Order: sequence, then C-alpha cells, then structure tokens
Amino acid sequence: MPELRKDPIHGRWVIISTERSRRPSDFTPEERKPIGGFCPLCEGNEDRTPPEIIAYRENGTPPNSPGWTLRVVPNKFPALRIEGDLNREGDGIYDKMNGIGAHEVVIETPRHAETLATMPLKGVEYVLLAYRDRMIDLRNDQRLRYILVFKNHGVSAGASLEHSHSQLIALPIVPRRVAEEMDGAKKYFNYKDRCVFCDIIRQELQQKSRLIVENKSFLSIAPFASRFPFETWILPKTHYPGFDHMESPLYEQAAQILSDTLKRMNRVLDDPPYNYVIHTSSFSGPESEHYHWHFEIMPKLTKVAGFEWGTGFYINPTPPEEAAEYMREVK
Amino acid sequence: MPELRKDPIHGRWVIISTERSRRPSDFTPEERKPIGGFCPLCEGNEDRTPPEIIAYRENGTPPNSPGWTLRVVPNKFPALRIEGDLNREGDGIYDKMNGIGAHEVVIETPRHAETLATMPLKGVEYVLLAYRDRMIDLRNDQRLRYILVFKNHGVSAGASLEHSHSQLIALPIVPRRVAEEMDGAKKYFNYKDRCVFCDIIRQELQQKSRLIVENKSFLSIAPFASRFPFETWILPKTHYPGFDHMESPLYEQAAQILSDTLKRMNRVLDDPPYNYVIHTSSFSGPESEHYHWHFEIMPKLTKVAGFEWGTGFYINPTPPEEAAEYMREVK
Repeated sequence: MPELRKDPIHGRWVIISTERSRRPSDFTPEERKPIGGFCPLCEGNEDRTPPEIIAYRENGTPPNSPGWTLRVVPNKFPALRIEGDLNREGDGIYDKMNGIGAHEVVIETPRHAETLATMPLKGVEYVLLAYRDRMIDLRNDQRLRYILVFKNHGVSAGASLEHSHSQLIALPIVPRRVAEEMDGAKKYFNYKDRCVFCDIIRQELQQKSRLIVENKSFLSIAPFASRFPFETWILPKTHYPGFDHMESPLYEQAAQILSDTLKRMNRVLDDPPYNYVIHTSSFSGPESEHYHWHFEIMPKLTKVAGFEWGTGFYINPTPPEEAAEYMREVK
Repeated sequence: MPELRKDPIHGRWVIISTERSRRPSDFTPEERKPIGGFCPLCEGNEDRTPPEIIAYRENGTPPNSPGWTLRVVPNKFPALRIEGDLNREGDGIYDKMNGIGAHEVVIETPRHAETLATMPLKGVEYVLLAYRDRMIDLRNDQRLRYILVFKNHGVSAGASLEHSHSQLIALPIVPRRVAEEMDGAKKYFNYKDRCVFCDIIRQELQQKSRLIVENKSFLSIAPFASRFPFETWILPKTHYPGFDHMESPLYEQAAQILSDTLKRMNRVLDDPPYNYVIHTSSFSGPESEHYHWHFEIMPKLTKVAGFEWGTGFYINPTPPEEAAEYMREVK
C-alpha cells in the first residue's frame, strides 16, 4: 500500500510509492560523457575567470596565479548583479525590483579529476570554511537578506562545468521555500517550546531506521518525508540556526560526515548526479533563532514531471528506510 | 540588468536573467529517439491495459475492444490506490496516512503517431471533455479533496510511453502549491473585492506584450513571473473557479486555443518536451470561489538545478515578453 507522509517542518506531503518501488540497480545511471576541452577552473587558467574574491594560498602566491587550494570568483554569467541600488516598482498589478545580489563560484580544488567524494578531508573542510567566510562577508551588505550555497554535480543535475565547484547566490529577499521552513520551525517552537529539527534528530537517533551515519557532532539521515529516492540530510546535533554560527572545529566534523555520506552515495548509486543545498537561517530577525541549519542532498535519479510541477507534491519510489539501509550498510 | 519579478497570485519570486538571455535557437532540442517496440495504448491492444473506466465509442463498440476515439483506464502502476479507508496516524513527531486516491490514464487517441498538436480539433475537445467527465465522477468520492490533470510529453518531461496520453491523480488532500494559489487568490479578493486572475487577464489584454493568442472565450499568455522559458498559461476570460464548471460549448473554444498554442510551441521550439497541468478549484469550501481555473504549460528547455530546489526560486533566461513575441508571430 502506498503511503502519504507529511514533512513536519513545512507540511509538504509526499507519496511513498510501493507499486513503483525502486532499488539502486533500477535507476539508469547518467550517460557519463566527459565534457572535455579547455577548463577555465583548472590551475594555470586563473586569467580565464573573473578576478578572485578570496583564495586559500598556503604558500602565499599572488592573487590570480597558480599555487592555490581553493578560489572563490564571481560567476562569469551572473544571475544577479552586485552593483546598484535596490529599486522596487510596480507595473499595474505586478511587482518587480532590479536584480541586485551576488553570484559566486567556489572552485573547490585546483585538480580537474577530484570531487568532494574523492578529495582529501582537508580539502572538503576548506570548501566549508570558504562558504562560511563568504557568508560572513556578505552579511555586511545591507541590501541582502539571504545566502544560498548550492552544488550541481553531473550534467543532468545542471552542472555546465565538470571541474568540482559549488555556487553561492546572495538575494535581496528570503526565498519562499526557506521562508516556509523558517515559518514552520517557528510555529512548532511556539507550540512545543522545542526546535522541530532537534526533535527530528532525537527521534532519528532513537529509531535508527532512517539513520545513515553519525559522528560526534553530526548525523546523516534519509528524511521521513523524502521527496526523492536517496534524498539525504546532514544536520548538526547541536542547535545552530546558521551555518556560519558554529565554532571553527566543527567544520572539520561537518567535512568528515559530508565526505563519508558522498562516498557512500557514490558506492550505492555509482557516482550519481546530485544537487545539494545548505539551508541556513536568514540574516536577521528573531524568527531565525528557531531554525537549525542543515544540508539537503538530492541525487538526480528520477525525472520530475507534470504532477510534481503542478502540485509541489512528490512521488518517491524508494522508501527512505530502504535507502538508509543501503547507505548504512555499504562499505 | 536582471530583474526580480513577483507572481501576484502566490508571491513567488523569479529572476529574469538578461546575462543569460536565451532565444529559441539557443535551446538544445531533446534527442528524439523513438521509444519504439510494442505499445499498450494503441488500438487493438485494449487487453494490455487495465479495463477501461470510460471510453468514447461513436459506433457503440463493446468496452475494451477496438473502435474508440478515447479511453480512460486506471494506471497500471498507480501512485495511489482507490480501495480502502483513509487512515491517518502518527509516528512520534511524524504524520502519515495510507495512499488512497485515483490514478488514471487518458489515452487521447487510438493512433500512435498523433499528438495534441497534430490531431483534429474534435480530438482535443474529447480529451478536455474526458477530463471533465472524470472530475465530475470523482467529486462524488467523499475521501478525495483534489484532482490534478497533467500531461508529460517527451522523454525528458517524464513520459515513459510515447503514445499521446495524459494523467489524472485524485488526492485525499489539497496539494500545497494549489492551496497556496487558492489562498493567495482569496487574500487578493478580500483586499480588492476582485479576482486576481481576472485582474491579470484585464492587464494582459490591455498591455498585449505578453499576450500570445486569444479567441472569444480564452487567452494564452506568457505569465509576468514565468518560472521557465516559454512557460504559457491559458485562462478563460470569464470567471470559472473549476475546470468542470463551464458550459459545454466552452470546451470547444478551450480545445481550439490549446491546439493553437501547442502548434505555435512546436513551430517555435521544434516539438519540445513539455508538461502541462490544469489548476482548478478544490472540491469544496467557499475559498474555492475566488479561484479561476487555468492551464499551465511548461516546456522543458532548461535543467532545474540546486538553486531552484533549494529556494523554490527560479532563474528564467528568457523574458516572457520575448517568448510571447516569438509565439505570437509564428505562423
């Protein structure tokens, strides 16, 4: 019998479809054609990207030259522009504003063949520290209200460059999906005097059926109302509203569990295309205190079609308990 | 300069990205491999689908035999099951219910090679009348609260069968995206004493820049805050909350504009994969009176990636005014 499940944070329902139940081997892997050709993100090609915003250079090499372990550069084709004032205006019943914001690319490694799942742990930690550094800096811009860090890995997950990178978009408004989550977390807190994410963590650590892996400070789970097969969340066990609110040593722990989780995903699903996002509290406002930052990792195994677009309701053919079992047991 | 635009119905923002502006020829058409092989939806293969729920048989041939112009059958791999009682239960902080609902397939034509864009107008009208017949019937089921009609055309839009068909899912809950739209429409009505969709129609007919085509009773537009390149809505000019609330002659007009719009899309975008959904009012409740049914057609030209999943915020590289111009001017 299929099951309807409700996400406890923002009330989104999903259909866990048993008729269509699918195991890892049922998903056709993406045709992996190397994109090939010249790579503007590789070491030595620093002049082919816009000038770097920050870079980690252990040997103190000059900006925009080789010798880095990580670079952050503006996106060459930005969805939003950083220059200008925020003008809001109407046009009859419609509202618009000019597209102010930041759109940056985190080049995660100088080496073309490395990914977050295969690079040394220190490299993954640098990536997370770069996210934090950029968040802290962009918080100072009074025009901006939210920063989304996201990653597209693999062609069918929307990556147009093969070289391992993630992106960061800073927005003048809090996006709907995040606002709904913050709102849901606040309502739950007002009703129960507890954080909904902390309650999820407590229940998952107790029931264990959806737990994938944990370390001292983090856990990785297949969420109860997973929208996608093998959807995976990583949450800090301690309540931190924002990704950049943690003490520095925790980023090493976060890197460890992210790397471990992605390695498991590679084994179980044969290096699948995936997207991840960091959901973090917004810049300000007391409601953000009830939020609890986390990673949402979404392997791209099925096609999202008319039903999902029309309803915001997802059909997931792999029960999260089964997904977690595969992910937990793989070596 | 990119522009942020807000959907007046449920407040979703989109980025209309000018840096990445894309014209019809910039989209790589889907690799069109014929799926081929045996087709269970073709005339003569009636025994390969579950028994028909309804069929239009002009010459009165018996059920589940050849001689039909349209059949509606249960989905062989239903996401929801029609048998059973609706049981709601909790599991700690989580909520679930069993997956009660209907999942049906509308086989739009007996002929494998025909599509909604190429079949005779009468065929398109039959498809719309079949949607209406099924909606009216399913409304009687007290366990159900909403019906979504949707269509996946082309492999990358999620179609697993090539033969022209659409689907209908009846749900025990009103899905989030529709509930938000109904809520937005109600708030607008409470504030202005007018329907937001009627106001959109008035402004679009006046400004004309996003108008694609109109007939006596309908118009086809590129919505102001389009999420996707060449997203197209079709709305009735008169206020009807539900798709099945219209007088019978109007379905011919609806078929005419749907056919015309899909033909234009085929010409401009070279037979693109697409999804469409019918957004209609829910079964009951006074709030549904403020709703105004419409088609949302979404060509699948770009990949939805991490940013969109993370935020519910879309980056659209084709301004709707440009899309409408292409669609309007094509022969």
